[in-house]
Amino acid sequence: MGRVVVDVMPKPEILDPQGKAVAGALPRLGFDGFVSVRQGKRFELEVEGDVTPEVLENARKAAETLLSNPIIEDVVSVKDASGEVA
Amino acid sequence: MGRVVVDVMPKPEILDPQGKAVAGALPRLGFDGFVSVRQGKRFELEVEGDVTPEVLENARKAAETLLSNPIIEDVVSVKDASGEVA
Repeated sequence: MGRVVVDVMPKPEILDPQGKAVAGALPRLGFDGFVSVRQGKRFELEVEGDVTPEVLENARKAAETLLSNPIIEDVVSVKDASGEVA
Repeated sequence: MGRVVVDVMPKPEILDPQGKAVAGALPRLGFDGFVSVRQGKRFELEVEGDVTPEVLENARKAAETLLSNPIIEDVVSVKDASGEVA
């Protein structure tokens, strides 16, 4: 079984309240040195068989329509992660 | 400015309703061949200066306490992403 990983992040100009909340909590919990935090999404799509270029192209289209909102989010990467440990 | 990327996913044995919803929507939108989907989180932490081993260790501790819930989530990776394009 192959696996495709899709990373989606809020666009830089879009306010990210979750990221801001994390950034505010870090120093309160003793984690210093972090300037800002952005929170996005990570999808793992399992496919039957291998991740062919066609599967990857299919995943890219899904990433840009279903997995992200192109008005406020960027698809950062769509990659074959079959070799990586789960 | 350096950047650390933290990936967090629901543990395999934990129900992931968001992932299930995506998996159900994919074939309805014409994206076939995907067997299952899991949805997790991706954090980008910006740091002052370089990502030293100390910064990475600090980020790892934050990932395991603040950024994830160790009961239901796994920290999949904590890595230096300073070289990657935003």
